[in-house]
This record gives sequence, C-alpha cells and structure tokens, in this order.
Amino acid sequence: MPLQTRLTDALGIEHPILLAPMDLVASGQLAAVVSRAGGLGLIGGGYGNAEWLEQEFAAAGNAKVGCGFITWSLARKPELLDLVLRYQPVAVMLSFGDPTPFASKIKESGAKLICQVQSLAQAKEAAAAAADILVAQGTEAGGHGVTRTTLTLVPEIVDAFPGVPVVAAGGIADGRGLAAVLMLGADGALMGTRFYASQEAQGHPEAKQRIIEARGDDTLRSIVFDISRRNIWPQPYTGRVIRNAHAGRWYGHEAELLEHQHEEAQRYTEARERGDFDVAAVIAGEAVALIHSAPPAAEIVDRIILEAEARLARGTRLIVS
Amino acid sequence: MPLQTRLTDALGIEHPILLAPMDLVASGQLAAVVSRAGGLGLIGGGYGNAEWLEQEFAAAGNAKVGCGFITWSLARKPELLDLVLRYQPVAVMLSFGDPTPFASKIKESGAKLICQVQSLAQAKEAAAAAADILVAQGTEAGGHGVTRTTLTLVPEIVDAFPGVPVVAAGGIADGRGLAAVLMLGADGALMGTRFYASQEAQGHPEAKQRIIEARGDDTLRSIVFDISRRNIWPQPYTGRVIRNAHAGRWYGHEAELLEHQHEEAQRYTEARERGDFDVAAVIAGEAVALIHSAPPAAEIVDRIILEAEARLARGTRLIVS
Repeated sequence: MPLQTRLTDALGIEHPILLAPMDLVASGQLAAVVSRAGGLGLIGGGYGNAEWLEQEFAAAGNAKVGCGFITWSLARKPELLDLVLRYQPVAVMLSFGDPTPFASKIKESGAKLICQVQSLAQAKEAAAAAADILVAQGTEAGGHGVTRTTLTLVPEIVDAFPGVPVVAAGGIADGRGLAAVLMLGADGALMGTRFYASQEAQGHPEAKQRIIEARGDDTLRSIVFDISRRNIWPQPYTGRVIRNAHAGRWYGHEAELLEHQHEEAQRYTEARERGDFDVAAVIAGEAVALIHSAPPAAEIVDRIILEAEARLARGTRLIVS
Repeated sequence: MPLQTRLTDALGIEHPILLAPMDLVASGQLAAVVSRAGGLGLIGGGYGNAEWLEQEFAAAGNAKVGCGFITWSLARKPELLDLVLRYQPVAVMLSFGDPTPFASKIKESGAKLICQVQSLAQAKEAAAAAADILVAQGTEAGGHGVTRTTLTLVPEIVDAFPGVPVVAAGGIADGRGLAAVLMLGADGALMGTRFYASQEAQGHPEAKQRIIEARGDDTLRSIVFDISRRNIWPQPYTGRVIRNAHAGRWYGHEAELLEHQHEEAQRYTEARERGDFDVAAVIAGEAVALIHSAPPAAEIVDRIILEAEARLARGTRLIVS
C-alpha cells in the first residue's frame, strides 16, 4: 500500500523513496526503474558530462525522473543545467555548495528544487534559496559528506523549517530505516548504497559484491580516495568508502600520500580501469551493514515499503494500555 | 501509558529509558529520579572513586538503580566492583574495554550485565561475555565513543544477536528519537546529554546552559580535551564536546597541544574549577540540537514517553489503504 507524506504529495509519487544521484552509478535505467516502482529516480549528474547525461536521459525513456548535481562542480559548467532542464525533469537536486545561483532557473522550469545539506547552517542557506525539499544527509552516507549524523540532523532541520518537506539521507537501507526517519519527522528517505547493490546500477559487479560482503565496521570517511584520484574537494567534505588495502595503507598518512600523488594516482586509475578494488575505492555508506544481496531495484523498493509498513503497524502495539 | 519491550521485561521497569552513567554528572539523586519515573538510573561510576560511589548510592536511597563503569579504568581498581555489588544494583554497565574479566562476578551477584559497544566487533566480544543487554552507542553520543553511527549500528547488532535486548545510545533526546530507534529494532534508548540538562544532574549550571544554547553543528569529536586534562584514552576512543574557544584553538593541532601539555593542563584545571567553559569542555552529544531547557528529570521521562507514544500511534496513519 502507498505511504503518503508531504514528499509524495510534493513530487506526485507513490512512495517516499528517492534514489540518490550517485555519480555514474545512478544511470537512466536505474532511475527509471525506481520511478516506475513508485519512488523517484535521480540520475547521477555528478561532476557533469553532457554526452553521458543525454545518453542517460534517453535511457530513462518516458519515466518521470530527476537529476542531481555536485553544486561546486556545476558552477564550472553551468550549461549542463540548461541541458538537463530541456528534459523536463521532475526535480533537480543540488548538493555540496551554494544553490543560490541555480535556484530560480530550476524553479521557473517547473522542476522541484531539492537541496541536500549536511548541517543546520547549510539548511538555512538552502531554505533562503527557496528549496522545495531539503535532504538532510548524515555522515553515515557513502561518498562525500561531513560529520553530522542523520539521527540528530533530521529532527533539528524539521524543527527549524516546519514548512518544508525534509528527506533523510545516510544510513538507510531497509524498511526499518525508513520507518525510523519517519518517526524523526522526515517525509521520506534518500538511498544510495542500497540501490548501488541492485541489478540495474551502473557499477562494477565486483564493487556490488564488496558492498554485499562488507559489514558496517568496514567503511571509513577520509580524503584518501580524493587524493588518489586527483580530485580534492573543498572543505569540509570527505568521502566514505569501503576500507581496502589502499585505504589501509594511506588512512592517517594523507600528507605522505600527497607527496606520492603522482605515482599513486596513476596506480589508482589503472586499478579502477581493471576493476581492482583492493586499490580503487568502492564508494559506499555505513548502510552496507544492512545489505546482503543485489536484487532488481523494483524489488528493493517493494521490500522497503512492505517492511516499513509492518514496522509502523507494530509500533503502536508496544504501548500497554 | 507504559511502553513494553524486552528491555522493560529484562529489568522490571516501566519505560525503556536508561540514564547514561555519566562520570560525576549521573549522581545518585539523578539516578533515583529516573528510576522512580519508570526508567532505570545508572550512577556514573566513571573512573571510579570509592568515597563518591558510597555517597551516591546513599543518595539514591531505596530507589532501584544501577551503576556504570569505564571498563579499562575499572581494571585498575577492580575492588570498586565489589563495593558497588554490595548495594545490590539492578544492573552494572561496562563500557570501553573487555568486559570478560568482570562478567561472571556481576551476573552471579544477580545484577544484569549491560555492555555498551561501539562496533559490531565489540558486540561480538560482549555477547561472548554473556551480556544480558547490549547498548549500541553511535558516534553522535557525548563523551567518549568511536565512529559508527546509531542508525546503522543498532539494526546490525539486532540482526547479529537476535536473542539479546539492544538499547540504542547516541543522538537520542526526545520521543521522536526513542520511537525511531524502536523502529530500528532496539528495545529502548540510553540518554546522557538529555539528562545532563536536568535540574537534578550534578553539573555546573553554566554547563547546562551551554547545552541548552548549543545547536547540533556545535559539537565535535576529538582528543583535545583528553590531552588538556592529562587523561589520554586508549585508541580508538575520542570524546565529543561542545565546541568552545579552547577546542577552536587546538582542534587539528593536537600534536602542538601535546608539546604545550604542561601549561595547558594547568590552565584547563583552573578553568574547570572556576566554571570557565571557554576553556573547560562541556561533554555533550549532537543531541544538544534537540534540547532547549533543563526541567526536572522526571518531567523529561514523562515527555519522552508521551511524545514517543504519539509518534508511534501516528505512524500507521501514513499508510494509505
């Protein structure tokens, strides 16, 4: 049965589940499957590549999808926003940077403006830019993020902006997590790692396998992989990945890694090309703790909704009258 | 109305709320008030001081309370466990270290053995020591902790040890947080910072005021305050505190602080004595985001239960039939 919140109303979707726009991994096909299953798929615009975006919007076909960008990167290639808006996306999500320069163009196109934030301070900036939806992303998330956790960031932002739907991101991979963030006052959940380990995700099979095998203690947040791929982000962002031999060698030795950046970056690129994840990073969040298979994405959506509804129904039975 | 879980059954209490045994702050009086309100108060045994413990058990009077210890510190003064067991506590909670050497003595006394863990690996150790209750503590917690977050650590431990009641700790300060962790499969919540900001907590009024005023973005996890008070913990533990001028000066400059430890430790001790919290740390978690007053502790318990029950009751109404 559908789960109705302010998020499903705002986006005209059946279930309060968003696919995180994971760079390269959240393909047009994956986004379309999540949307057709009742959620909203966001294509991973990431650092931005016109050809890839055109190809993935074509792959999404007539499914209603959205697209997400890394804001500080989009600021260097603002023409990509125009390209995406021509596809009339349901929503455009901006993360990691000031959304203000892009806000009015997105909203005037008819797309909803979704702003992902990692702190109360950033939420204030996004609300000032008239975000239609705020995504509160905790440090448990895979890939780039900061230090606040989902469990306190979500209710703090809900309290601060009572008129704006809030979506929780980071650490959610099943119906328990969705039910939990609904209790916190969130209107839905955005999930990345959970959909990375799906049949349709555009990721290496070995990367998906590592997500399935990893336990929650196996991820770490650092700048090792950004240094290794010559892609150092502005502060305060760091990236969460699954610990591997390369991370084990360099975690806590970032200054030394910078001294060896030339050879290590070459090694890293080669490893990524041949799918060697002892060196290349699998970008994934702490929610790997809860992921044990890579089924079709539509099945993931169905399972999460069923489990969340079962948990919600059971909750009242804890109260002894 | 009572909220019944495996935790309330195991401890014979009315509500699934535990007072975190905060060193010096969780006094006998505070523990007694939390227990009389239907939860379980745990006296903050901390680093351990016989005189203080005797005084606080006396202050708790005939209330049924428990006591918590820092395990690696207790290993240096094991006689304190005998002292505490003479008071027939409901439970003894061990955190930060291997519980094995103390487990059987605690259980044979009739007290429940509560083990707080910060990772799946530690949970395995605690389960092997036959812990009656596991507390899964996320990095959002105030004071010492590690890096895993409550949102993923709780369900991972619930899945790994289905026969053991699991309590969530870190980031919980209201009924929303309690309802959320119940959805994750936890059997209750342990709260520290929330009860620090209570009338009965044995804390400086100015420290309570800083908890009330802080936003969630204002805490940080580091080893600055441990260096400053000459109390460096074993790895991997770090301490979360409210950011102040002293933390701002030294965070990220820990090696330099170590070089100046002699004068800084003296400055720190003096500041703590005169209640100068621009230098001395207020030990508190990210849940400061959700704390806006310091009422009587019994009122805190009542409010949390009322709010959790209201949330749980509302959850099913999100399902559209």
